[in-house]
Amino acid sequence: MDLVSSVNNVQQDCNGSNGEYHYAVVEPHDEATSDHLHCYMSKTLVEFQDHLVERSEHFLGYHLNMNCKHFMALSPLLQFHVNNVGDPFVESTVGLHSKKFEIGVLDWFARLWGIGKHEYWGCITNGGSEGNFQGILQGRELLPDGILYTSQESHYSIFKAAKMYRMECKTISALNTGEINYKELSENLSQNKDKSAIINVNIGTTFKGGIDNLDLIVKVLEECGFSEDRYYIHCDAALYGLISPFLEQGPKFSFKKPIGSASVSGHKFLGCPMPCGVYMTRKKYSSPLLNQNIDYIHCVDSTISGSRNGHAPIFMWYNLNLKGYKGLKRDVRMSIRNAQYLRDRLKNIGISTMLNDMNIVVVFECPLDQSFAESWNLSHHGNMTHIVVMPHITTRMLDDFLDDLVRKRKSWYGRDNLEPPCIADEIGISNCVCVAHCKSKN
Amino acid sequence: MDLVSSVNNVQQDCNGSNGEYHYAVVEPHDEATSDHLHCYMSKTLVEFQDHLVERSEHFLGYHLNMNCKHFMALSPLLQFHVNNVGDPFVESTVGLHSKKFEIGVLDWFARLWGIGKHEYWGCITNGGSEGNFQGILQGRELLPDGILYTSQESHYSIFKAAKMYRMECKTISALNTGEINYKELSENLSQNKDKSAIINVNIGTTFKGGIDNLDLIVKVLEECGFSEDRYYIHCDAALYGLISPFLEQGPKFSFKKPIGSASVSGHKFLGCPMPCGVYMTRKKYSSPLLNQNIDYIHCVDSTISGSRNGHAPIFMWYNLNLKGYKGLKRDVRMSIRNAQYLRDRLKNIGISTMLNDMNIVVVFECPLDQSFAESWNLSHHGNMTHIVVMPHITTRMLDDFLDDLVRKRKSWYGRDNLEPPCIADEIGISNCVCVAHCKSKN
Repeated sequence: MDLVSSVNNVQQDCNGSNGEYHYAVVEPHDEATSDHLHCYMSKTLVEFQDHLVERSEHFLGYHLNMNCKHFMALSPLLQFHVNNVGDPFVESTVGLHSKKFEIGVLDWFARLWGIGKHEYWGCITNGGSEGNFQGILQGRELLPDGILYTSQESHYSIFKAAKMYRMECKTISALNTGEINYKELSENLSQNKDKSAIINVNIGTTFKGGIDNLDLIVKVLEECGFSEDRYYIHCDAALYGLISPFLEQGPKFSFKKPIGSASVSGHKFLGCPMPCGVYMTRKKYSSPLLNQNIDYIHCVDSTISGSRNGHAPIFMWYNLNLKGYKGLKRDVRMSIRNAQYLRDRLKNIGISTMLNDMNIVVVFECPLDQSFAESWNLSHHGNMTHIVVMPHITTRMLDDFLDDLVRKRKSWYGRDNLEPPCIADEIGISNCVCVAHCKSKN
Repeated sequence: MDLVSSVNNVQQDCNGSNGEYHYAVVEPHDEATSDHLHCYMSKTLVEFQDHLVERSEHFLGYHLNMNCKHFMALSPLLQFHVNNVGDPFVESTVGLHSKKFEIGVLDWFARLWGIGKHEYWGCITNGGSEGNFQGILQGRELLPDGILYTSQESHYSIFKAAKMYRMECKTISALNTGEINYKELSENLSQNKDKSAIINVNIGTTFKGGIDNLDLIVKVLEECGFSEDRYYIHCDAALYGLISPFLEQGPKFSFKKPIGSASVSGHKFLGCPMPCGVYMTRKKYSSPLLNQNIDYIHCVDSTISGSRNGHAPIFMWYNLNLKGYKGLKRDVRMSIRNAQYLRDRLKNIGISTMLNDMNIVVVFECPLDQSFAESWNLSHHGNMTHIVVMPHITTRMLDDFLDDLVRKRKSWYGRDNLEPPCIADEIGISNCVCVAHCKSKN
């Protein structure tokens, strides 16, 4: 049997119940078939890598920075298991950790977010969700009777946290920008003055990049009679935690304001091969739930994860050193400029479009054809889709996308009296150019 | 300024408040210092890698397999962000995932753990803790009034889960082997017949490798009048999930028994650069809490994590293909043999020692000197320490350790009337050779 046919034989074992094949682990496993096995493994990995290259070139719809080539320089680290189990600031007997890198990264974020080196506690997480879990849990531990308030545009991890932690949760509607409805928040707070408030503030909602106005939320809390000891604010800054601090204008989030914690993703604006993130809180809010002294690892276990990825802190450290504040500021400016370019071109084509001020998420009408959406990795939310103009997205990629969209769109609309959808309810009448709103404007 | 002194200057910025230095992210960051910066980064990474090499050679005290060199072959994957967000079995529009590898790995574990390809649901996690979190949550969702029962020797993630999920938790004492005290469990169940039972069964406790007898626990539940719809069993098989199935004798855990879920670590017996693991449950127990349909990722979010590491499944797939059942069985046999070798040599030296049947965790008296413990990455629990005889541990490493121990021990005891500690309470009189128990035996 030659190698190609043996590989095909192996792959026949991999058909799932739905006809989709996956990459099986091959058994039986003996010396006689080891050549075939290695051929199968190599072929599979090459095929997968080609798929990743192709996908990366068309990746427009998610908060992921695809600029990862330079991380190859860190490949020697794959020869080691690196584990940052427990508290980053407490040395443990598990010697194979990268906590020195982790603290370097955390200190950098502390400076960026306006909190003193000795005032904060933080850790590198497995991603934005874990940071949100830790923030909401911190709030619940400090205010055990607290009601969680969050807007309907919040990331799903916030609602998941409320269910996991058995917390009462009030979902507040959102404005067209994606921001929380401040009036509705105020009404809800007024009706529940007897219980403390745990507020999740979105520093960039997932779909529209809407940034809750932190100052206004604090004002609402004060007006409703909540003193600082009766509320806790967690900021979900998954994407904008690395954008907002670099903006000269626009809403700011910072530990100089009365927030309890914040979470940002490391694989989003910054870019990292694996999901990761930073969680940061005030040192004085040390959670009695999580701060168990674990004899075993000779360390305090103040994190949710327990064992923690020790490579991610090195990858973040590497990237932050390469870029620095200046490089990130440059990335922010470029992404905003490219987002404005995309918005303008979509508007010129006659497509309903919205882009919040100083933002990188361009929201527009959802493509009619799912295969088109998939080819550009576009997600949807009702009749909307969006492009998150991350640092890997060039104007050339956007031009290619727009050419493809214009071509395909001609075949979607015009026949069978089909018209592009109205999305005025989602992005506001002024941004909608559906047939009805076009007529009303003319 | 030459490179060396510029690097030293950079490092001076890195001193933490406690005098310990960490690896700072360096600012200001301009073209003029870019040579110095690159030199600092390279020097730091080389220094860290040397540290990892040295530590790996002395790594005896934790459940980590240090055989990771072969993963360098997968380094091209570091050029891509790979993200398995959402349910492994549902295709999402986030095109950069490795779910085909993930399903291959899960199918392999389903075969190993005795559950049909179409009967299970599972996912690859960020480690054993996350698998435990998912299992306990699954139990709570199915039996919302359930009391969690677990032995005092359980991993700290179990107690953390109980607190996070606001569950009532009964901690049961443990036998000297590390197994749960079946009698006490029975008494507790009998006293709480009005509430359902969620049982965490340890398939290998962290410190002693004690394996709870699953059949006996099921028998206890039945005797106490709990029908199958009123209990849920989660198996924390962090280490032994990849050992127990390969043993010809000894206690077995399997989905052929009435368990609801199981969790194993991928970086423990198997080995992986980053923490990871497998969580598996019965398909019929689909959790209504976690199975949210997320429009945004065009996928069901049935995991705790949300964004999930897409490299880990490929690393596990790669390792499982290289090893196969045969290779793992060989590793299990070798590790057990080496553990028995270590126990016998410790006993011959006259050190109180315990090794459970067909086990790889050798428990013995804690070294007196913390710097000795640190040099071999040994943890402690009261007066005990342990060596987890993982596949990277050779008899040569054990001999080096024993030589060092014998040498150092001479200086610890004998002077100042200091005697080795009695650990009969922890490992049983028959295993203890402290002065008092030695005398009583002679």
